[in-house]
Amino acid sequence: MPGLKKKWLSAALVGTLALSSISFATVNAQAKGKDKKTEEAKNVIMLVMDGSSDNVSTIARWYKGESLALDNILTGAVRTYSAESAVTDSAPAATALATGNKSNSGYVGVLPSLVTTPGVKPVAKEDAYKPVANVLEGAKRTGRATGIVSTSEIQHATPAGFSSHATSRSNYDDIAEQQVYQNMDVVLGGGSDSLNKTRKDGDNLLEVIEDKNYDFVTTRDELLKSKSKKIWGSFAPSSMAYDLDREKTKPEEPTIAEMTKKAIDTLSKDKDGFFLMVEGSKIDWAAHSNDPIGMVTDFLAFDDAVAEALKFAEKDEETLVIAVTDHGNSGITIGNTNTNSTYDKTPVSAYIDPLKEATMTVEGALSLLNKEKSNLTEVAESYGLKNLSANELKALQSSKNLGATLVQLLSARANIGFTTGGHTGDDVFLYSYGPAHPTGLIDNTDIAHTMAGAMGFQLEDLSKDLFVDAQAELEKQGYTVKIDTTNENNPELVATKKNRTIIIPENRNTATIQVGNSKVKFTRDFNTVSFYNGDKFFISEEMLKFAK
Amino acid sequence: MPGLKKKWLSAALVGTLALSSISFATVNAQAKGKDKKTEEAKNVIMLVMDGSSDNVSTIARWYKGESLALDNILTGAVRTYSAESAVTDSAPAATALATGNKSNSGYVGVLPSLVTTPGVKPVAKEDAYKPVANVLEGAKRTGRATGIVSTSEIQHATPAGFSSHATSRSNYDDIAEQQVYQNMDVVLGGGSDSLNKTRKDGDNLLEVIEDKNYDFVTTRDELLKSKSKKIWGSFAPSSMAYDLDREKTKPEEPTIAEMTKKAIDTLSKDKDGFFLMVEGSKIDWAAHSNDPIGMVTDFLAFDDAVAEALKFAEKDEETLVIAVTDHGNSGITIGNTNTNSTYDKTPVSAYIDPLKEATMTVEGALSLLNKEKSNLTEVAESYGLKNLSANELKALQSSKNLGATLVQLLSARANIGFTTGGHTGDDVFLYSYGPAHPTGLIDNTDIAHTMAGAMGFQLEDLSKDLFVDAQAELEKQGYTVKIDTTNENNPELVATKKNRTIIIPENRNTATIQVGNSKVKFTRDFNTVSFYNGDKFFISEEMLKFAK
Repeated sequence: MPGLKKKWLSAALVGTLALSSISFATVNAQAKGKDKKTEEAKNVIMLVMDGSSDNVSTIARWYKGESLALDNILTGAVRTYSAESAVTDSAPAATALATGNKSNSGYVGVLPSLVTTPGVKPVAKEDAYKPVANVLEGAKRTGRATGIVSTSEIQHATPAGFSSHATSRSNYDDIAEQQVYQNMDVVLGGGSDSLNKTRKDGDNLLEVIEDKNYDFVTTRDELLKSKSKKIWGSFAPSSMAYDLDREKTKPEEPTIAEMTKKAIDTLSKDKDGFFLMVEGSKIDWAAHSNDPIGMVTDFLAFDDAVAEALKFAEKDEETLVIAVTDHGNSGITIGNTNTNSTYDKTPVSAYIDPLKEATMTVEGALSLLNKEKSNLTEVAESYGLKNLSANELKALQSSKNLGATLVQLLSARANIGFTTGGHTGDDVFLYSYGPAHPTGLIDNTDIAHTMAGAMGFQLEDLSKDLFVDAQAELEKQGYTVKIDTTNENNPELVATKKNRTIIIPENRNTATIQVGNSKVKFTRDFNTVSFYNGDKFFISEEMLKFAK
Repeated sequence: MPGLKKKWLSAALVGTLALSSISFATVNAQAKGKDKKTEEAKNVIMLVMDGSSDNVSTIARWYKGESLALDNILTGAVRTYSAESAVTDSAPAATALATGNKSNSGYVGVLPSLVTTPGVKPVAKEDAYKPVANVLEGAKRTGRATGIVSTSEIQHATPAGFSSHATSRSNYDDIAEQQVYQNMDVVLGGGSDSLNKTRKDGDNLLEVIEDKNYDFVTTRDELLKSKSKKIWGSFAPSSMAYDLDREKTKPEEPTIAEMTKKAIDTLSKDKDGFFLMVEGSKIDWAAHSNDPIGMVTDFLAFDDAVAEALKFAEKDEETLVIAVTDHGNSGITIGNTNTNSTYDKTPVSAYIDPLKEATMTVEGALSLLNKEKSNLTEVAESYGLKNLSANELKALQSSKNLGATLVQLLSARANIGFTTGGHTGDDVFLYSYGPAHPTGLIDNTDIAHTMAGAMGFQLEDLSKDLFVDAQAELEKQGYTVKIDTTNENNPELVATKKNRTIIIPENRNTATIQVGNSKVKFTRDFNTVSFYNGDKFFISEEMLKFAK
């Protein structure tokens, strides 16, 4: 064999091939990064297409008629299970991706209380619900600018996992407050309701946002015009529109690609680099509804955001880009029971042409339905169901769940199959690019560790630094400590030593000192948001030192 | 950023990121092989797990309780569509993997007659059904030893695609004959019926196998004991047993890992290197039946064969290993309608424990059913359905398709979903290792070109060399040419010039010369099997030169 080099394998790859030595537990992404050229990245952009089983990319590519941006950076696959289940919820998935820890359903940035999954290390009882640092908090610590973008309310599980800690993903009030006090540079998405309108504690976080000198924007135009280094964009009370529906229902909203580009443009002004998390949130929601057109079009909108990230990274050369879904959803396939025996002769058009007829998602189409339901045919048409057969019309007219019937009819026409209305447990494609990019089959927790490593910190050390048991530590220092839950919506830690009182509110990065009965209080800002998990109160070492 | 190298990207990777320049048509795997260390491989082992959607690997890993051999070499993904459909049949899939050409349903190693898939280059009308060279034929030409292994009959679509040419995959007689005259070194699998018993032409290929000095073996013991450099193992009349059933139903059959190891041990004695194709055939069949336990256990048996290949390749350091499924099948998912709203708290055990109860596949279990069906409960138990509920028992007793009911009941217990009884159109995981191994998202046709490139030849050039239009070329030389189909099962090309007659049978590597009315005939062997596609007769340049 002329020209054949015997020793072509790098030592790293040989290492991974000691087959019997690979444990069933999480694989270390770092060790697998056989082709990474450097250990560090100035910038990290993490993009999550929520609930997008691999098959969505195949359908989206046919629908688009050309390659996806993601197609250029497919490098492996990711295991997605949680500490308690083979099929993860988005909250523990975000916790894994952001903090490197497996957790439980609904848990955001805290350790699990229940571990049943084979290969996942048990968590000591006293560590359950303990907050763990995420990569965004680490990026801030290294002086990087930070940002989050989502098409759902920004308090939703995935962006929450990168910017807050909560024992339940539905604690929107707490999550919103932590996000506002997290001192991120760019926050773009939906969810304005949780900033003031629906808050139980009556706080108006819009004022805090203003105090913190964000340029607060609520439309695409305002966003694109902003020249601020700090932008808070809140474009909808809850979630933003599906990409396919936007022009007709919410034309004032920006696209996910526009938000991503603006975030990158803004954050990249920081000479220390930046961390950005972007979520295409509603692919998952469309998957729960088994709405193939909602899935495909929001996936393509997400892919445009990936293209923006890659455009920047390609030019910049110091940016790690990772894109991944947090889990499968819906079991969507090209092919269903229609094609049991005809699949081999069914052309691409038989799957795609019916989808192309839809001009709105099922959510968008249903929003057109009048009270009398007299425009049912038009609603069906906007969802691509033209020239209804007698059976199809009958199914719609007698339907008790019109959305479910619409998606069934379109999927039947398009020969698309689904197995469930819930998430699924499949390993999913890993997309990555740039310095220290991960490759091969890895665990979702490895992604957090890879990003942290590329930014020059260790998440475990960071957690120790950012979250100490305030009561225990302050009592060691001679304080008398009380967790005051008089105001159940705003618990505070109150620590007293001699005539000195320190008051630390949950969900904020502040502490207030009061001396004696003096009405003079001194409040200081810190880098890290304090967190009360209902049992213990966690503050940073930085705040603890201040108390000393 | 100290330590950050600006120019970390290789030129090759930068090239792939010119986003707009990536065409929708097939991606060139060679250009993407950014981390390959050499362009050539002494040996190539191609392993195909037929009809195994990505999700099978996830379920199989949980079932096994530890990492798979495949987990160590996941490097990208593969597009699988055929020339006429989004969802491929195994025959055009094998044609793509083996020859680098998209083709039509049922076509084995010949060009398509129908191209409808966007991005696939049309085929000129006169080129339809034209044979195209495969990588095994190329490997032979470079002096390498060659072999094929399958758990189905060896004439089945995938092994056929790597060793023969046929306008229909069901032409077992033709495929078997070509395989016997292909002069491979190791052939292991099922399908002894097509060697003599069921042949329409009455030929006894067993005699040819003997004449060609193969060690013909029919049991595991005979196989393992063989010391021959040429082994033909035919272990079953049609397919071999499922891995889970073997011990009980066909204990004399070897495992796929045993066949793979023996093939490697035998072929690797050739100092020029070898090419080996291994197919785990019946994962696909179990998928068609929606039998999760058949899929998982045959997938794990296949994974053991991958481990054998990697063990050799790791030591050898000159072997390219590629493993891939030819297409998805069944739309299997972890999660079904049972778990619509409970997926996030359903432990791994809820999916795996019910599967673990099965001691046979549905095929194996059904083989136990007596005529009176009086042992229905035992049959169900062997399929893991212990302690039948009243509803389950009723469903079985009233079933018109017992196999279908059994798999439905087990899948319901195991919370496993399916979308179809047919193939699916998903991109599938790419597994690769060794010199010139492909990475990233590639097309199934790229795999053939990568293997050919690694072995030092170009498939297009090879096709021109191995398959010329015999009639046209011989007529140019002054021959009168007739395709004699008097014996419809054994057409021959008869070329006459002056008193010289050349007789070339289809499906064989021989030509016979007769001078005048002399009864003396001279028959010679060539490297390549001749092929008649029902219209034209194709012979190699080598054979053509002999005629001159």
